Amino acid sequence: MLERLKEELYRLHLELPKNELVKWTGGNVSARDPETGLVVIKPSGVRYEALRPEDHVVVNLDGEAVEGALKPSSDTASHLYIYRHRKDVNGVVHTHSPYATAFAAVGRPIPCCLTAIADEFGGPIPCADFALIGSEAIGEQVVQHIGSSKAVLLKQHGVFTIGETATAAVKAAVMVEDIAKAVWLALQIGEVMDIDPESVKKLHDRYTHVYGQ
Amino acid sequence: MLERLKEELYRLHLELPKNELVKWTGGNVSARDPETGLVVIKPSGVRYEALRPEDHVVVNLDGEAVEGALKPSSDTASHLYIYRHRKDVNGVVHTHSPYATAFAAVGRPIPCCLTAIADEFGGPIPCADFALIGSEAIGEQVVQHIGSSKAVLLKQHGVFTIGETATAAVKAAVMVEDIAKAVWLALQIGEVMDIDPESVKKLHDRYTHVYGQ
Amino acid sequence: MLERLKEELYRLHLELPKNELVKWTGGNVSARDPETGLVVIKPSGVRYEALRPEDHVVVNLDGEAVEGALKPSSDTASHLYIYRHRKDVNGVVHTHSPYATAFAAVGRPIPCCLTAIADEFGGPIPCADFALIGSEAIGEQVVQHIGSSKAVLLKQHGVFTIGETATAAVKAAVMVEDIAKAVWLALQIGEVMDIDPESVKKLHDRYTHVYGQ
Amino acid sequence: MLERLKEELYRLHLELPKNELVKWTGGNVSARDPETGLVVIKPSGVRYEALRPEDHVVVNLDGEAVEGALKPSSDTASHLYIYRHRKDVNGVVHTHSPYATAFAAVGRPIPCCLTAIADEFGGPIPCADFALIGSEAIGEQVVQHIGSSKAVLLKQHGVFTIGETATAAVKAAVMVEDIAKAVWLALQIGEVMDIDPESVKKLHDRYTHVYGQ
Repeated sequence: MLERLKEELYRLHLELPKNELVKWTGGNVSARDPETGLVVIKPSGVRYEALRPEDHVVVNLDGEAVEGALKPSSDTASHLYIYRHRKDVNGVVHTHSPYATAFAAVGRPIPCCLTAIADEFGGPIPCADFALIGSEAIGEQVVQHIGSSKAVLLKQHGVFTIGETATAAVKAAVMVEDIAKAVWLALQIGEVMDIDPESVKKLHDRYTHVYGQ
Repeated sequence: MLERLKEELYRLHLELPKNELVKWTGGNVSARDPETGLVVIKPSGVRYEALRPEDHVVVNLDGEAVEGALKPSSDTASHLYIYRHRKDVNGVVHTHSPYATAFAAVGRPIPCCLTAIADEFGGPIPCADFALIGSEAIGEQVVQHIGSSKAVLLKQHGVFTIGETATAAVKAAVMVEDIAKAVWLALQIGEVMDIDPESVKKLHDRYTHVYGQ
Repeated sequence: MLERLKEELYRLHLELPKNELVKWTGGNVSARDPETGLVVIKPSGVRYEALRPEDHVVVNLDGEAVEGALKPSSDTASHLYIYRHRKDVNGVVHTHSPYATAFAAVGRPIPCCLTAIADEFGGPIPCADFALIGSEAIGEQVVQHIGSSKAVLLKQHGVFTIGETATAAVKAAVMVEDIAKAVWLALQIGEVMDIDPESVKKLHDRYTHVYGQ
Repeated sequence: MLERLKEELYRLHLELPKNELVKWTGGNVSARDPETGLVVIKPSGVRYEALRPEDHVVVNLDGEAVEGALKPSSDTASHLYIYRHRKDVNGVVHTHSPYATAFAAVGRPIPCCLTAIADEFGGPIPCADFALIGSEAIGEQVVQHIGSSKAVLLKQHGVFTIGETATAAVKAAVMVEDIAKAVWLALQIGEVMDIDPESVKKLHDRYTHVYGQ
């Protein structure tokens, strides 16, 4: 079932190591099928090199196994919490990408000091509180703190991104690491300044509605 | 039309991710055909992996679509502004390469403190003011601040490079990131010093007229 | 003899350059065969590109050559010391991976300030004293300082990791560099905080017993 | 002529971009043929992707062209100066590898604070004075400052390495960047300490005479 979505997730999972967002088995992507409401997610602890489309696990929004020989990601409950509370979200990504995680480690939001941040995220990247892994506690933190952004840092942990599709969420995961790196580098050689709110709005509106095909 | 130029741009666009200058759909290269004056440019928001030679868009110097099924880059007006004001330029590149962007984020020019900077750029890399994306405002900043350099930083944004050909502009984009990284690294462990102007001139003259085949 | 183990080591050795843990001929992996107690290890000074399964050297726990045309790694005596003193260990990895080595260079343990550290290592990464290469002195340092961790820094040298299998030890080598990088980055932009011991224990228990298939 | 040496240089030149030591056309390797005393070197300004074995240029120790359709590297006079003054050297490498170049930019030697530095270099990496490119002035700086090391920094420029063979010189170029990175990283999180001279000697002797096959 949901073969097309599994194929998409398979390709998207390969983007994570390719973009240096994950190591070994870390990180995961899930997608909600808009028609059935079912969620497809990475199996727990499987290496990206070994992951096949058919290995992805299907669960319903209550976390009940629907299909799959493997155990789902240990972040599944948090992904599902996000889907239940955000009807607009059909893709969720979790990584420990190093530059974003550095900001998370010290509990510091990433300021909106570059046009690329205004474009993709429409404001600063917020930082949620610490929560333990395995329950939906992390999902609660994500929903509480992400606001209208597509990315949120998890204190002393890593980063979650969301999107209307799994592809959009993976793009946000790539972009949040890219801008985290640029801002981190900038902080070592000077002071960064927030872009004024009116310009942030103009940039984000143009990027959202005019940019692309 | 302009098939050879599209093929060249196709190959040059692949250099951007290969040299870690861009992520996902960011960045763009354009080339002016010296005979017709037409400009070929990347379509807006297309991933590098998916980009084919025939996807490139042809516009005239006034920004009117001449050929192409796709929408041109949202930086097109700025590329065209540069071409209209710099008859010597037939290639323009825009990236958010991380080390150069770090200098741009804090509005700090890159000093001419390494022979590689004198060789390729003949002086420091200047930093232009902030401008919004989508109009020719960025092109104006580039023309106003780039002087005799091949690269200019855009405050809180990224970097533009120019060249007599698109290949030369891409080379400048690769080199500006390379020297931005070395200077950034140097600033963390000591003080950098400007090379004296006479040596800069000698190095730049030799590199421009003697180096290469 | 031990063909399957040599094949596994061959594949694992390729993970070291792929994950940017080693350069040229540096670093090595060994595995103990649980049935015979024999140890298979990288030959000394061979490049990863040239290394073949049959090039691996077999020695017994006293360091006597059992099979192999090549000289074993100059770290062999230290690997064997670890195997003799840790019955639970069947895989050992040594690298000079740059971020972990930076902590080792200044003799600084890596604090348990990220969930990924609690997950994989169950506490901070300790730092052993300086010891010369070639005898079992490094093995003594590893056994004395590693405690219940899977990784230990060697002062002014690099890092050793251990595991129940060679694959587990390589995973630990990949993860210690990953978390060393994130913590190093964090230290440049703020203060890191230890995760409280109870949460560390919960995270490590879950990761050890629930995570994975 | 010297086909085997050209083939070796071809393969070694590909190691430079692969190990992130060079960008675009920067950097070069040369080799002296011990029998004829002739030197084979990279042609000037050719991209690594385009370089073929037969493109390498043969010159004699006085810099006279012996074979080759292309112009030799603009660093040729400095390579030849090194060969004329160091009978023990048959390979020379020049790069602007970023971490080593950062130390060069600020005129700071790399201290012998890691076993890997003692192993490969037997002491700190010295820093030579500034010299212009194109004459043998850089070669003079290299010979004057390199001492018994295999690597020397060139102030505000980059790095030269030497070896008994071109392969040994390329290994030194890879290793000097590797240790430059580790030391650079260490300097951001603490104080590095010199290894005591007796241990440096023991490590270097073992690495030179015992390590490898």
